[in-house]
Amino acid sequence: MTASETSKNNTRAVWFDGKTVFMIDQIRLPFEKHIIELNDYKATVKAIKDMLTRGAGSIGAAAGFAMAQAAVKAKGDYENHIQKAKAEIESARPTAKDLFTAVERVYRAALQSPQKAVEQALAFADEIVEAAYSIGIFGNKILPSKVSVLTHCNAGRLAIVDHGSATAPIYEAHRKGKEIHVYVDETRPRAQGARLTAFELHEAGVPHTVIPDNAAAWLMANGKIDLLITGADRIAANGDTANKIGTLEKAIAAKYYGIPFYVAAPFSTFDFDTPNGKEITIEERNHDEVLLQQGPDYEGIMRNIQVVSPGSPVLNPAFDISPAELITGFISPKGIFKVSEMQKIKQYVK
Amino acid sequence: MTASETSKNNTRAVWFDGKTVFMIDQIRLPFEKHIIELNDYKATVKAIKDMLTRGAGSIGAAAGFAMAQAAVKAKGDYENHIQKAKAEIESARPTAKDLFTAVERVYRAALQSPQKAVEQALAFADEIVEAAYSIGIFGNKILPSKVSVLTHCNAGRLAIVDHGSATAPIYEAHRKGKEIHVYVDETRPRAQGARLTAFELHEAGVPHTVIPDNAAAWLMANGKIDLLITGADRIAANGDTANKIGTLEKAIAAKYYGIPFYVAAPFSTFDFDTPNGKEITIEERNHDEVLLQQGPDYEGIMRNIQVVSPGSPVLNPAFDISPAELITGFISPKGIFKVSEMQKIKQYVK
Repeated sequence: MTASETSKNNTRAVWFDGKTVFMIDQIRLPFEKHIIELNDYKATVKAIKDMLTRGAGSIGAAAGFAMAQAAVKAKGDYENHIQKAKAEIESARPTAKDLFTAVERVYRAALQSPQKAVEQALAFADEIVEAAYSIGIFGNKILPSKVSVLTHCNAGRLAIVDHGSATAPIYEAHRKGKEIHVYVDETRPRAQGARLTAFELHEAGVPHTVIPDNAAAWLMANGKIDLLITGADRIAANGDTANKIGTLEKAIAAKYYGIPFYVAAPFSTFDFDTPNGKEITIEERNHDEVLLQQGPDYEGIMRNIQVVSPGSPVLNPAFDISPAELITGFISPKGIFKVSEMQKIKQYVK
Repeated sequence: MTASETSKNNTRAVWFDGKTVFMIDQIRLPFEKHIIELNDYKATVKAIKDMLTRGAGSIGAAAGFAMAQAAVKAKGDYENHIQKAKAEIESARPTAKDLFTAVERVYRAALQSPQKAVEQALAFADEIVEAAYSIGIFGNKILPSKVSVLTHCNAGRLAIVDHGSATAPIYEAHRKGKEIHVYVDETRPRAQGARLTAFELHEAGVPHTVIPDNAAAWLMANGKIDLLITGADRIAANGDTANKIGTLEKAIAAKYYGIPFYVAAPFSTFDFDTPNGKEITIEERNHDEVLLQQGPDYEGIMRNIQVVSPGSPVLNPAFDISPAELITGFISPKGIFKVSEMQKIKQYVK
């Protein structure tokens, strides 16, 4: 199977028909699956800003689509219009690297013609999907015919248009008929595991079990976990890896029990300008993420409830850094590399 | 200061005036502090059964009080009455070892007179408080004048009448004017850390911060944690320790970073009939604890909300077992012992 055979609009997190952008509203997930239609670039920018789509790849693809929408629907002074749109799109999520890459590329095409912009926007999204699919092909090779995988947070198709990074080998193993079971860390405080990864795997029919974050080491102690696979937010030149808070704790436990820990990521996640994890700043997020939990009550009405004793201070570091020594290898679109092979990875990183 | 000087009814989780049993309703905590008055043993039994009080020590004390209430308010055939009450109290929480110890002791006293029963019930509770206080005295000795402690779950005064086990050294250090800061693991799924330990420390004015369970190793990596202290549910003869799910993960992380891990426990927690952790059965609890979260909304109305993607299976192991090799020492009412000194502990265990 090729990437395009496995990736259709009904499995993608965001797609584009040349005029309208479609995306799964990830804010309503997992309790409601709703696909929204965005008819001009301003609507797409707002959706990106409001985090209706999230994850580096999906944001990048959506931003590229928005840039193409601006070109297709331009009125009056074309160049002035697309330049103004470019600035607007770039301000939607100013720290998302893939967004800038996508917008720049589609903008350059738009300077030639609106049609070229559409082509480049679609190509950008397809390349993300191709890379994710390749991660799955290589990652699947290390999975035995019966295997149990632990994953943390959501590095799935919702975040990376299709296939995902950490989930790509899982989907490929499942397509190949392997007997795979996925343990999904809840991933407090935002619970992307319990909400998004669980939703994805359930929808794809992949056998899985959601566990409290606290239970991961205990499952390892009982021989229930063969491998730990996560995505990454940023990988430094020495292999130190920033990912969702809690990844470090799982990585340490995996090391203690001799369980391999693989980080799956496209090349855009590797940052050779950052020598090591110490140089990566960890964002401290809104305390309400720890203090409150959101979800539907029995009647389906969304509620925000308090889950921490009133008056107690909280801390909410969004990411942690797993030192390279805890990582068995990186699953990339060009194969699996050990931490000692970072120079081989570097050749693929733009 | 003596134990009685530090432990008053306003710091205890459960107490008795010879007629009425008083307890903090722990189900309403931390959003509402309500003290309930139980006027006969049947009301006290119901409160124990409904888990209005919880934790080995608090359940034991409450059960002893209930037995004394039965003796004091007996009508008709005295011996028949107290025997029947004994059976009823014992059936309230059939797996709570301290409950049986307390009921047996107070029942024997009740065979002499109702007054003896009251004396023994009060003595039983006071002995729990004395032991907890002693844990604090010894535990405080290993705490430097400026120290940061990580704890997991609630092994506090709510669980052990007063002072607690893991919290006893913390309270003593705070009383002695040490600069102590406590990082409190949320402790999903039931969140006893965020709800109960945070409530206790806030009420006692001990500086603390609630963290998502996932953040503990990251704080260790950043030098924020000097010691890990937890309570225990059961300690096997070789030192393997069963405690709330997640303790193992923190213990492994502490080992990785060279941070000492102490288990604080009264002697009733040591079980020399169980050779090692492999012999301890781990209870799988109700899946709703993982699927749902309870708390008040903005208007203070208690709500149950879904926090897991609908249709995804979950797992909810209540405890895990930290192997003895991860434990630096046990803080007991008779001093601090290394894992290699289990035989010294044995002499104190009935």
